[in-house]
Amino acid sequence: MDVRRSNLSLILQEVRRESRSRARLAVNTGLTKATVSNLVSELASRDLVRVREPTLDGSIGRPSQLVELVPGRVLGLGLEINVDYVAAVVVDLAGDRVASERRPVDVKALSIIAAVAELASLADDVAGRVLSTEPGALLAGIGVAVPGLVDVSHGVVREAPNLGWIDVELRCALASRLSREGTAVLIDNDANLAALAEHRQSEMEGVEELLYLTGEVGIGGGVITGGRQLRGACGYAGEVGHMALDPDADSICGCGRRGCWETQCGLAAFLAAAADPTDPVRDLSLDLDGRLDLIIERARCQDPRTIEALTLVGEKLGIGASVLVNVMNTQVLVLGGYFARLGEFLLGPMLSQMYRRVIADRLGGCRIHLSRLGFNAAATGAALVVIEQMLADPLAVPVGSANGLTVTRPNGRSHEHAVHP
Amino acid sequence: MDVRRSNLSLILQEVRRESRSRARLAVNTGLTKATVSNLVSELASRDLVRVREPTLDGSIGRPSQLVELVPGRVLGLGLEINVDYVAAVVVDLAGDRVASERRPVDVKALSIIAAVAELASLADDVAGRVLSTEPGALLAGIGVAVPGLVDVSHGVVREAPNLGWIDVELRCALASRLSREGTAVLIDNDANLAALAEHRQSEMEGVEELLYLTGEVGIGGGVITGGRQLRGACGYAGEVGHMALDPDADSICGCGRRGCWETQCGLAAFLAAAADPTDPVRDLSLDLDGRLDLIIERARCQDPRTIEALTLVGEKLGIGASVLVNVMNTQVLVLGGYFARLGEFLLGPMLSQMYRRVIADRLGGCRIHLSRLGFNAAATGAALVVIEQMLADPLAVPVGSANGLTVTRPNGRSHEHAVHP
Repeated sequence: MDVRRSNLSLILQEVRRESRSRARLAVNTGLTKATVSNLVSELASRDLVRVREPTLDGSIGRPSQLVELVPGRVLGLGLEINVDYVAAVVVDLAGDRVASERRPVDVKALSIIAAVAELASLADDVAGRVLSTEPGALLAGIGVAVPGLVDVSHGVVREAPNLGWIDVELRCALASRLSREGTAVLIDNDANLAALAEHRQSEMEGVEELLYLTGEVGIGGGVITGGRQLRGACGYAGEVGHMALDPDADSICGCGRRGCWETQCGLAAFLAAAADPTDPVRDLSLDLDGRLDLIIERARCQDPRTIEALTLVGEKLGIGASVLVNVMNTQVLVLGGYFARLGEFLLGPMLSQMYRRVIADRLGGCRIHLSRLGFNAAATGAALVVIEQMLADPLAVPVGSANGLTVTRPNGRSHEHAVHP
Repeated sequence: MDVRRSNLSLILQEVRRESRSRARLAVNTGLTKATVSNLVSELASRDLVRVREPTLDGSIGRPSQLVELVPGRVLGLGLEINVDYVAAVVVDLAGDRVASERRPVDVKALSIIAAVAELASLADDVAGRVLSTEPGALLAGIGVAVPGLVDVSHGVVREAPNLGWIDVELRCALASRLSREGTAVLIDNDANLAALAEHRQSEMEGVEELLYLTGEVGIGGGVITGGRQLRGACGYAGEVGHMALDPDADSICGCGRRGCWETQCGLAAFLAAAADPTDPVRDLSLDLDGRLDLIIERARCQDPRTIEALTLVGEKLGIGASVLVNVMNTQVLVLGGYFARLGEFLLGPMLSQMYRRVIADRLGGCRIHLSRLGFNAAATGAALVVIEQMLADPLAVPVGSANGLTVTRPNGRSHEHAVHP
């Protein structure tokens, strides 16, 4: 049964890459044509793939039927909880985003129970909306991204300094509050999930060494090395925000320590440098995107305080990034969160420090990307983990009503429901 | 042929772990008994294994012949070049050390050509001595450990700040100076090789996440993650010595930068804190072991300056180690070089900082070991790489004169030639 499961997974992933004929699938996988046909029938019975009649393009010979993905059959829901928002992203089987939503929430002001209720309500709303418009779609599970140390196997947040959480059994708490009973929930560190999401972007093909920095109030790191996630002994790897880059500093970090990197260039540190407490850019009740738009406007007008804050924070970002690039000889460094939004202003000072502090010539080959997933990266990664778990075990999807073999509706891929509040 | 090569390798590695009967080898590898017999004959024809007649222990049934390793058949020579010494270690096929030598050399005072000549002369002397006492032994190659960025595939030292080297074609330069023409030479970073050597120690069985710190004038890092070496995009990973832990510091590092970690707790920084320039512990012409013995003596007598220096350096070591343990969630942190020799005094202050600065509870499970390989770790790793390359391709060893199948001399494993000058 394990061989069959892994062969089904192999075929499904081949088809996910590109629609292919059964003959091509046999060549690519090394399986016999008879086996491939059988596996395709099995996947089609679960409505994961369908067989499309060939288009007549005038070429010679009998054109083959193409096996193609039914992307909307399975959906993964990813959630993120952070200091000042909760977010949700839904991706389909193809990995394409079909819905997203973000709600500003001052999580630290809430009890843990109330925060979990916010997450559950967002999940219920988004899932309900998407499933009502995707007939036959199955929600394969929910992934949750958390800014802190996560014990993945037990589903427990061990420590999330910026939320003030210690030993929170988030997996159980959330699962019991969802209106859809029995939905599988997994939790993981936000930066790990964001790194995964970035690594799955098409332009990252061939990239084996990636570092993602979150750029929120805290700075988290997600690392891919040798093409796989660096998780460390207990899955706590990537805690970069508390690097002691200035142990004698005055500022106290959310974790209670001094001189942590995120007190130098986390979002709160940047905003404190850029504006007075009463300035709207520091008003947590306003959506972050709008506040960053304001910053960008001021920077483009060469507002001195804004420019000075961007320069300072860019340099501190560069000093810390140099530590990490020296340690890991990163191939691609992806700046996420607010670092990505303000990238055009941060990159100059950041690079000036990196060229000074990275030992290897030309940064050891490191390229810097600004995340295109932005604040959705972690939730997207959480949704993708759900999809990838399903891809590894297609038998987890029940046999559907449609047999799939005769479905010939056009290849209508993801249609995004942009639902920003 | 590739299947045969990999099967020969499989059998050789099984036998290396423990002497076994052909039947046991067949069970462990999943190969047929006939294939195993054939592979054992092939390995025996190259004198890599031999078949030992069973001892009569009084048990019932016909006892089986045991296939055992001929450990002395193949030797790997590892060299290390560092700021104030060159070192050599020879290991046999079993991974046991059969010879070692260290010579104090002020490498920075030498031209590159003269430094390479020192290495070549040490290699020739040690190899000549060992091969003259191991009849039938084959030198499989030479590995060289260098404290800096190494382009392994081209055999070039890109940058070794503490040696003052940039773009040195060490592999070619050394190979052309050896008296044994055609000896294969490979070069790699010292900390990478030391990490490998530590990871191969028997007590590290099951350890998948290891960090080794060199503890020389410079501090290098070697990382094993998921059981494999973390090399990064170009093999430059592990450059931990230049972490900017105090970018505004006065002290200038060997690399020309300010505030590098190794200016806080490298060997030179420690000695400068512990003693005046005219003190014998700072006399580079004296052997380091002797100088460290003096330090230990003073520390045991509670000499205030020595204790203060050990405390300060231990704390700085702990602050930097916390950065790395937070980033990598290390399972075992091995302190090498002088950190290991002075470990009894450094561990207290180091741990006090680590407990303060590592985010995960109880250091995220990190255990700290003092290297038992000491200053030999990097050269041992270099020799082991040579042996492991051979283990992966036993056909590289020529068919020997002895056919091995009838050899029954007692299992005389490694006999160490302790050749300290």
